[in-house]
Amino acid sequence: MPARYVVIMAGGRGERFWPASRHSTPKHLLPIVGETPMLTQTVERVLGIAPKENIFVITTQAQFAGVRVACPQLPTENIVAEPMGRDTAAATGLAMLLVKQRDPQAAFAMLPADHVIHDVREYQALLNVAFASAESADVLVTLGIKPTEPATGFGYIEQAGPWKNVAGRDVVAVKRFVEKPDLETAQGYIASGRYLWNAGMFVWRVPVVEAGLKAHAPELHAGLVAMEAAAAKDGWASALAAGYPNLKKISVDYALMEKSTNVVVVPATFDWDDVGAWPAVANHFPTDAAGNVLRGLAMIEDGANNIVVSRDGHLTAVVGADDLIVVSTADATLVCARARAQEIKALLKRLEADAEKKKFL
Amino acid sequence: MPARYVVIMAGGRGERFWPASRHSTPKHLLPIVGETPMLTQTVERVLGIAPKENIFVITTQAQFAGVRVACPQLPTENIVAEPMGRDTAAATGLAMLLVKQRDPQAAFAMLPADHVIHDVREYQALLNVAFASAESADVLVTLGIKPTEPATGFGYIEQAGPWKNVAGRDVVAVKRFVEKPDLETAQGYIASGRYLWNAGMFVWRVPVVEAGLKAHAPELHAGLVAMEAAAAKDGWASALAAGYPNLKKISVDYALMEKSTNVVVVPATFDWDDVGAWPAVANHFPTDAAGNVLRGLAMIEDGANNIVVSRDGHLTAVVGADDLIVVSTADATLVCARARAQEIKALLKRLEADAEKKKFL
Repeated sequence: MPARYVVIMAGGRGERFWPASRHSTPKHLLPIVGETPMLTQTVERVLGIAPKENIFVITTQAQFAGVRVACPQLPTENIVAEPMGRDTAAATGLAMLLVKQRDPQAAFAMLPADHVIHDVREYQALLNVAFASAESADVLVTLGIKPTEPATGFGYIEQAGPWKNVAGRDVVAVKRFVEKPDLETAQGYIASGRYLWNAGMFVWRVPVVEAGLKAHAPELHAGLVAMEAAAAKDGWASALAAGYPNLKKISVDYALMEKSTNVVVVPATFDWDDVGAWPAVANHFPTDAAGNVLRGLAMIEDGANNIVVSRDGHLTAVVGADDLIVVSTADATLVCARARAQEIKALLKRLEADAEKKKFL
Repeated sequence: MPARYVVIMAGGRGERFWPASRHSTPKHLLPIVGETPMLTQTVERVLGIAPKENIFVITTQAQFAGVRVACPQLPTENIVAEPMGRDTAAATGLAMLLVKQRDPQAAFAMLPADHVIHDVREYQALLNVAFASAESADVLVTLGIKPTEPATGFGYIEQAGPWKNVAGRDVVAVKRFVEKPDLETAQGYIASGRYLWNAGMFVWRVPVVEAGLKAHAPELHAGLVAMEAAAAKDGWASALAAGYPNLKKISVDYALMEKSTNVVVVPATFDWDDVGAWPAVANHFPTDAAGNVLRGLAMIEDGANNIVVSRDGHLTAVVGADDLIVVSTADATLVCARARAQEIKALLKRLEADAEKKKFL
């Protein structure tokens, strides 16, 4: 079996879990669910898939120090900071180049840093199926999550029909990738039984993904080629600083997956939650008799269905109020109606525009 | 004109403004309304009534240091700490003894420390009317507030009819003092037009209040006589420590005012608010277009009628929620439905019963 690589995508702006998350400490650097940062849990899960020398993390410059602390197992040179965010196609290109310099034929997985998956055995088994699939043919492999509700926050993958059985598992040909649907469309997807959620988990060989980018995103690919040459000559730091800002800003779904016809999907049979925002946290902690989730030193006096996240030594108390998210940190406190968590972004836009309050981002 | 004295009652358990207020820093030691502690504002208001040497503050031992800081104008020996709370009749007796040792015939006012009164000129004018009344006859004088709503949180004073004109103002004979009524009773009081709120503001001469206590609360009076003798012999500290715990625990309204027939009232014509709890704070600050009151570094994203009290440098944000009180302090945060502020006491009872959380009181 050829060497396998894993590239963990650990960027993110730290908005949805504000004020616990910030630009420099987004969700994957926090123990939102579990006792260690989500990224640490992700690294531990993939250590059964690839040796630690073959595990990369792509992050931002603001998060580099936090990532270094959260991944003590990994060599420092495997943690690479984008000079700035250029969307997921550019990050995919960077991941491809990082693996290519080690082994131009290797297969690698590209995985998000901040998902919750408890069934590690099944997760590793299916990743190995995805690797074996990618190593057996010139295909782009993805893992698709069986939807549990008509979510409008994910892209979907429409299955075409059986591709082949790999290591005892049925891998499925993909008909198409579709972007985040509206509710009605999502309900149709669920009813059809043919759709899976796109969780941003991909496995492919370097030459296959490079050919895909060259065919479907030639401008981006040209930038990657230039950056690869610069890195060989002057090293990654200078190559990234000079080349990355010029890469076309586009998502990997739009640039590659929606346009490719050689895509197959491994339907996921492990538990999965992207824990997209504060309300999702409630699924991972016990509730009291009134449905409240209390973390840290928190108290409720006659209130129901609240999520209260306090901090060490600080008491956060809710009296006579229901359906709130209350998060208390050293320098900022959020009180948000549980059904309105998506509006936190509007608040953060106002912080961004305010010289005095920008420091809270 | 004989010397006049003022005794400011600055006890209180600091419950209704938790977590800003604590046992050691109740409302009168906080700038709940205005820029200085409520007690400081009270002292400043009465400096036009009596010289600073004649102004006493009765407080608790836990609050002594805070009171000393809040009243820089007053002599330290005029700040007296009760060894423990023994209700308002005992505090009245102590006030009477403190004044008596300076001048056994003097009139003194007994005033709460934490009310908001902006019309200082009228306030001082009516206090002078009350003093002149008390100095002109053997009466217990009180100031009564014209009710603006059928409040159930105050005792009421029923007016009998004109007593006499003092310094150009009509002073009224009191028919009776009544305790906090239920809503229906309060509505009847308002409709009758005969009732005033009992705001706990009294003026009387030492011999008149002592005679009243002797007649209507003889057990308490006996304790005061013993304490007076002990103080003359051993000083106040030892007299209070030995005698105060034995004083009968009873309110001055019940022990004296409800039983006395020589009570007159000066109807108050100044603005007045006891700011009894967080919701009342809203009456004293400007609101934004959605009715929110924001103090400190506070932001609202699509929410109405919230009262948000943040602290220096800490950002408190409310998203998509209405009618909340949010108070953030260094070690505790409260989120309370505006209509449920009276339930804060139930929360504090739970803190009291919890060895780990007692420190937040």
